[in-house]
Formats: sequence, structure tokens, C-alpha cells
Amino acid sequence: MTAFLSALGERLGAAGLLVGGDLSAYERDWRKRYPGRALAVARPASTDEVAEVLRLCRQHRVPVVPQGGNTGLVGGSTPDDSGTQLVLSLARMKRVRGVDVANVSLSAEAGCALADVQAAAAAAGLLFPLSLASEGSCTLGGNLATNAGGTQVLRYGNARELCLGLEVVTAAGEIWHGLSGLRKDNTGYDLRDLFIGSEGTLGVITAATMKLYPQPRDRLTALAACASLDAAVALLGLARERAGDALTGFEVMSHAALALLARELPQLQQPTGAAAWTVLLEISDAESEAHARAVFEGLLEAAIERGCVQDAAIAQNLQQALAFWHLRESIPLAQAQAGLNIKHDIALPVSAIAPFVAEMDAALMAYLPGIAVINFGHLGDGNLHYNVQAPAGVAPAAFLAAHETAINELVYDAVQRRGGSISAEHGIGRLKRDELAARKDPVALGLMRAIKKALDPQGLLNPGRLL
Amino acid sequence: MTAFLSALGERLGAAGLLVGGDLSAYERDWRKRYPGRALAVARPASTDEVAEVLRLCRQHRVPVVPQGGNTGLVGGSTPDDSGTQLVLSLARMKRVRGVDVANVSLSAEAGCALADVQAAAAAAGLLFPLSLASEGSCTLGGNLATNAGGTQVLRYGNARELCLGLEVVTAAGEIWHGLSGLRKDNTGYDLRDLFIGSEGTLGVITAATMKLYPQPRDRLTALAACASLDAAVALLGLARERAGDALTGFEVMSHAALALLARELPQLQQPTGAAAWTVLLEISDAESEAHARAVFEGLLEAAIERGCVQDAAIAQNLQQALAFWHLRESIPLAQAQAGLNIKHDIALPVSAIAPFVAEMDAALMAYLPGIAVINFGHLGDGNLHYNVQAPAGVAPAAFLAAHETAINELVYDAVQRRGGSISAEHGIGRLKRDELAARKDPVALGLMRAIKKALDPQGLLNPGRLL
Repeated sequence: MTAFLSALGERLGAAGLLVGGDLSAYERDWRKRYPGRALAVARPASTDEVAEVLRLCRQHRVPVVPQGGNTGLVGGSTPDDSGTQLVLSLARMKRVRGVDVANVSLSAEAGCALADVQAAAAAAGLLFPLSLASEGSCTLGGNLATNAGGTQVLRYGNARELCLGLEVVTAAGEIWHGLSGLRKDNTGYDLRDLFIGSEGTLGVITAATMKLYPQPRDRLTALAACASLDAAVALLGLARERAGDALTGFEVMSHAALALLARELPQLQQPTGAAAWTVLLEISDAESEAHARAVFEGLLEAAIERGCVQDAAIAQNLQQALAFWHLRESIPLAQAQAGLNIKHDIALPVSAIAPFVAEMDAALMAYLPGIAVINFGHLGDGNLHYNVQAPAGVAPAAFLAAHETAINELVYDAVQRRGGSISAEHGIGRLKRDELAARKDPVALGLMRAIKKALDPQGLLNPGRLL
Repeated sequence: MTAFLSALGERLGAAGLLVGGDLSAYERDWRKRYPGRALAVARPASTDEVAEVLRLCRQHRVPVVPQGGNTGLVGGSTPDDSGTQLVLSLARMKRVRGVDVANVSLSAEAGCALADVQAAAAAAGLLFPLSLASEGSCTLGGNLATNAGGTQVLRYGNARELCLGLEVVTAAGEIWHGLSGLRKDNTGYDLRDLFIGSEGTLGVITAATMKLYPQPRDRLTALAACASLDAAVALLGLARERAGDALTGFEVMSHAALALLARELPQLQQPTGAAAWTVLLEISDAESEAHARAVFEGLLEAAIERGCVQDAAIAQNLQQALAFWHLRESIPLAQAQAGLNIKHDIALPVSAIAPFVAEMDAALMAYLPGIAVINFGHLGDGNLHYNVQAPAGVAPAAFLAAHETAINELVYDAVQRRGGSISAEHGIGRLKRDELAARKDPVALGLMRAIKKALDPQGLLNPGRLL
């Protein structure tokens, strides 16, 4: 290892290689669930330096853990505790390489913070719509490696749908110059989408060209109270039909989720009262505020008439709109305050959501009376954060120790029966690797393993993650 | 081969295997550019039968050419003339398996004609937006295997962007059950997008789940006369800004293209006169015809004010709208009537289009004075059909024989210098295989070959195409 580290230090310089000292910022994720120990931390400043790192790793057979903002939720970007894995941080590669206004696209390096990508687009009068809670620290490279989702997926898609081209360093230390501003390119296999979502196991993304969009003239937000999840799904259909692509947000919160919020964060106002389900709708309008408001009012009137909405409130100003979003975004914090819980990030066909929730809620109550389901998420995408908390009076830690495995099995079995996904937007990493091996279509797993072997024959790229 | 054919006949029955007789419908493409000779034609009726065919091919080392509607333009779906390749026609697998209205999705088999997929969506009150000239005979499987484009890509994307999940038979004859109605699924490598656009070289697509959309309330079409390509690009930016996602079509036609149309098809009316560039715009509105018209009028007024449009005509009724589209869609026919020409299906960043065309037109005139460039295409996607015709008085066949290679080199070199693609939507097949090998990023080619070897180690799937 001495030879490896000294060769690495020679190539990267003092700023580019951290050996010894306090490496904890690189060795554990921000939730501190996956602490590890790194052999060292490489911090290359250019794509050529990333290629040098990977060539040396290959030569010395050193496993590499690529890392962006280290905000992932599944343990994909921190080293294990063997002390043999090199962390490859993209933090110094954070340049926006350029904005092409006429092509409505932008190129930036992997270590560029998502908020900085958004800001560069805004400075050119355009919108980069990817938006996540961690956008201040998560990076474009990490967003792509995990195919990040967030709150604007309904209209603009995941990170994958926003990407036009990639620059990637392969396991062999070669650079694929795949940056591209093209909307159409049918010249061979779709390598771009193969690297997107591969969690650093097939190559290291060093830069990307991303789609931008015109800034909407106005955004309007509303809360709607629905008597059932079926009614919320009907509202989604109606909203799609009447607002078309202007519908950019459709989030759902269960009664239990809002009740938890009222208990844990009583300072937050809840304008629509105690509905069984509350939907947050957002419309982004290309014309004017008046037009957006007319569309929204027409939609909500029609929804009340059809019986899928009982009550609704349209935000009167930006501050109120932010307050509505803040309600939705504070649920995880309220959950954290209430103690540990069993998190699920599942996706289902929208048509399967209501029956799944009815079946699952009943099964969990039968399994453990008094159990609390905190259910919320991106209903427009079929993505629920179906989280499960201990019954009142039961210590969360003891609850998790006793029931996490059984509850995961109940939930994932039901998800699988209905053609769903056990990881809608968070990825696999270390957290769900065994679950994936047990549940994924075996032919798909075989294909994935063949691809991994073809592209990383020595198995040095983020080993133990995903596959 | 006798053992192979008799085993195959046993599995597929008389309707499922054609040996001998007139197989020409399967042996040559519809433009008759790639005639070949098949060992036989397998016509499986189910996914299990496709798997049987591929297992037998593997066992007997028989190369397979998957075939859908056989409407491709690059020779990807017909056998070579060796008489050793089995054509695997998906024509009997044409069932729409189901429409999920609440999930706004549809599942259909690979052999289902595109028009039948559109009709099934329409019958459920929804829109399947993929639309091509050959939609009456091209098939969903072929659309996906080639990542087909068409006229609605600007808003809805290529076949790739419309696909949620696939069912695929691998080279080993295994079935990957990847049909899925999920909008989000981060459980491993993106196999779906790897098979899409792989032209039958990695596996055989047998069915797909596709996204549907709400039917727009109204569609309006306009023609706008622009003084330059720069002005047309400025109009595109303005239209995006003002119409947002309602902008579903933005096609461009050069003066020479419309002049050719006037000569060859004089019965077609050309309402905007002899502009340097004519743009066809389409707006699909979720609200009403009145709203669409107001948006369009506002947009065109603003465009005239800014000087990017000289004159414009909004279609007054559906018939006129169809006539506008008919103009655009008749250019290839006018070209065919005028004789052979050198076709290019190129993509460029939108910002590079005007300088590319200026440079290329000048270079071609310098190369051969009097040469005619018939330039038209999907400007909104950066995709031009930059076709080149013989100077007046020169026989087309002689022109092609003498100049095709040199002109392709001129065009493709310039495309490459500007970060473009030599195949925007038609694919590679046999036509551009050597061009791809010479021009594609060598690291990308290496990755593609590694993937091909991993998924089809015997090289039996559509050999000689793409790679």
C-alpha cells in the first residue's frame, strides 16, 4: 500500500490526497448510520486525475468508493471498516462548465452542489428542476449515480430524465467523453443510462450535461382534503386532465402523518383540518398568476363537485405556498423527533396504491395492534414513504429490534405481489443489497452481474454495494 | 440445420415456422435496399415460444435476426444473403395486454402495430404520443429496439422516454419479466434502457409497458415564415417560454425543400410564401381551443414584434392543420420523385444548428457548384434531415456513385466537430456500422463491445448490425 499511496500522492499533490488525520467527514454518512475506515481519501481536481486514480487502483488492486455530497440514505458512499478502501471524493470538481441558453442545457462537474447547478440555471434565466431536501450539499454526480428523485419528478422526471450526456472514467482508468447537448442520438447502446443509477459500481461520473427548462411565470400551491386514498387518486387524474403538464407537484399526507406533525411541531399551521388524506398540489404556469389561479380554481371546483375533494385552500402568496410545502417537508423531522422508525421508500403503479395501503394497514394492525403508520409521499409518481412507528408507550429501539425484519418482510412481500419496487428513489447501497438479491427478478440479476463483470472485471468499483 | 429446423417446427407448429416458399416479405426491407436470404422464418405466438427459439438457436449456433414491421431505414431487420440467418418475426405477438387508466399506462406485445397501440390508448380516452410516418405497419417492439423518434419528441420524447418496462428474452433463452407500471424504481442497473435502442443485438423485446398521457383538449397548428435559421431558433426559445409544455411540434423546412415540393407536388398549397425558412408549430392545449388560439396569437405577435417571424398563418380548422402537416410530411415523397439523394439524419445542439448549416451549405457549394441541399426536420430536437441532391441536369445515380462517400465525409466531419450525432433517430443497422466504428468515441465503443460480449457471448443476436 505504501507504493500505491506514494504514487497517488505524487500524482495528486498534497491537496489531492488525505492520509491519516481525521477523515471522519469522508468515512461516515451524514446520518452516521454507516461509519467506516478509509485507506485514504483521494480528492482529484480534474477528470484526468480521476483517471490516474483509477489506473493506480487497478494496478494495485485497491477498491474505490466514489463519494459526492455523502448525503445518501443507503450507505452507498462510505468505506467499509476494513481500512482497505480508497474514498474517491469528487468534492474539488465543482465547476459549472457552461450554460447553453439556445440549447437549454448546462454542463457541470460531478462535485457541483445541486443548489449551485440550480443557481447557474437561474442566472441564465432558466430552470434546473431537480429539487431535493439535501440540495445544499448533495452533488450532481451523486444525484446521477443514484438517479435521485425529489419533488418535481411528476413533471420533469428523475435525474435520469434530466440528463443528456455524461463524462465517465471507467474501471480501466479510461475517459468516456460522452458529454452531449443532443436531444436525439441513436448511435449505439445507451451507456448514459447504464451509468446513471449504478451507484458508482460501473464507473465514476465526472461531469454531465443536463436539460434545463424555461422558468415558469408563476407557481401556485394548494392543499386539498380528501376522504380516501381513492379520492386522492381520482383527484390526480382530474388534475392531470385539466392542468396538463402544468401540474408539477402532487404530494400526499395521511391523517396520521399530519397528526404527528401537530404533536411534534405544533407551531406549523394546518389549514385544511383533519382530513383522512391531504394532498399538496402545485401548478407551474407558463402564462400568468391569474391564469394559474383560474386553472386551479376550476380544477378544485370540479373536484369538489365530483366528490373527490372535501375542502381546499389555495396559497394566497409565496409565503403561504412555502408554508404548505414546509408542512410536507417537515414530516421526516417530526418522525425523527418522535424516535426511530422503520422507513420504506416504495413505488407502486398508481392504480395499486389504494388497495395496497388498505391491505397493508390492516396487516400491520393485525401483526401488532396500536402500530402507527406514517404514510406520505409523491403520489403522482406512485412513490410512498410508508413508515412504521412503534405503538404508543413502546420504546422505538426495542420496537425496531423486535419487529423490523418481520415488518419489512410484510411490506416488501405485498409490494412485490403488486408489481412494486422496494426502492423508488433512494437506491440500494448496502442497506438493501441482500433484499435486492432475494427479491429482484433472477434473470435481471444475472444480466446485472454479467454487466458488472464486463465493465469492472476486478470488482474494484464500490464493492459490496448494490450487487 | 435439419435437426435445428425440425426441432423448431416441433415447438412452433406449422403457423410458427416458414421454411422455403416465398419468404421475400421477411427477407427484404420495405425500401428494398437490403435484400437477403433467410434460413427460415420463425413466427412464435408467445414469449415462451420466443424463448424456445432462442434456446434452440443457441444450442445449434444459429444467428437470429429479430423483425418487427420491417420498416427500418438502416437494414437492421433483414437477413444477410448467406441463407444461414433465422428471421424471428414478432408479427404474431400483437396483443394489447391491458390499459391501466389510473396509472396512465398500457402494456402491449412487441408485434403490436404502433397505430394499434395509439388506438387502444384512444379507446381508453388517453393519448399514446409516439407518432411516425410508418405507424400503420411499424411495431412497438421495433420502435423500442430502434428508439424511434417522430414528430412529438419535443414534448414527449423518443420511444425510450415513453417506456416504463420491458419483457425481454435473452440470448440464453431466458425471460426477463421487466414489465412494470412504475414511474420510479431504483433497484439496480437500468436494463430497460440498455435494450431500448440496441437494435436486437442484446436480446429480443417481446412486450412493453408504455406511458400514456391525457388527450389534449385541442391542437392548433401554425406556419411561420422566418428570414434565417437564427430567427427560427429564436422563435423556438420564445415558443418554449410562452407555451411551455404545450408546444408539441416545431418542424423546419428550408426554402429549397418547399420549392422542391412546389415543383414535384404542385397541388399542395403553401400558405406562407417563399420564406428562407418555414416553421411548423403545434400547440396541444389542456384547456380549450379559445385558450390555445390566444396563446398562439400572443406568441406569434411577440415573434413578429421581435423580428424573428415575418409572416404567419394559424390553421383555421382541423383540415387546414392536417394540410400544414401534410406539407412537412410530403418532402421525402417529393425527394423520392426527384430521384435518388444522399440522406442524412443528424442531430446537433440547437445552438449549433445555424452555424453548422451555414458552414455546410458553403462547403457543399464549394465542393460541387449547383448542388441542392434539401434541409428539413425536427428543429425543436436539433434533428435535421440534411439531404443532398444532384445539381440540375446531373443524373442522380451517377451523382451518388461519384460523390456519396465524399459528401458523407464532409457532413459527418462537420457534425462531429460540433458535438453532433450521425444518427439522430434512424439507428445504425448495417448502413452506418462502419461509420460508427470509425467515428464513435473509442472508449464508448469498447464499453459497447464488452456489454455485447457479456450478454450475447456467442454473437448470435443480429450479427453484423450496429457493432
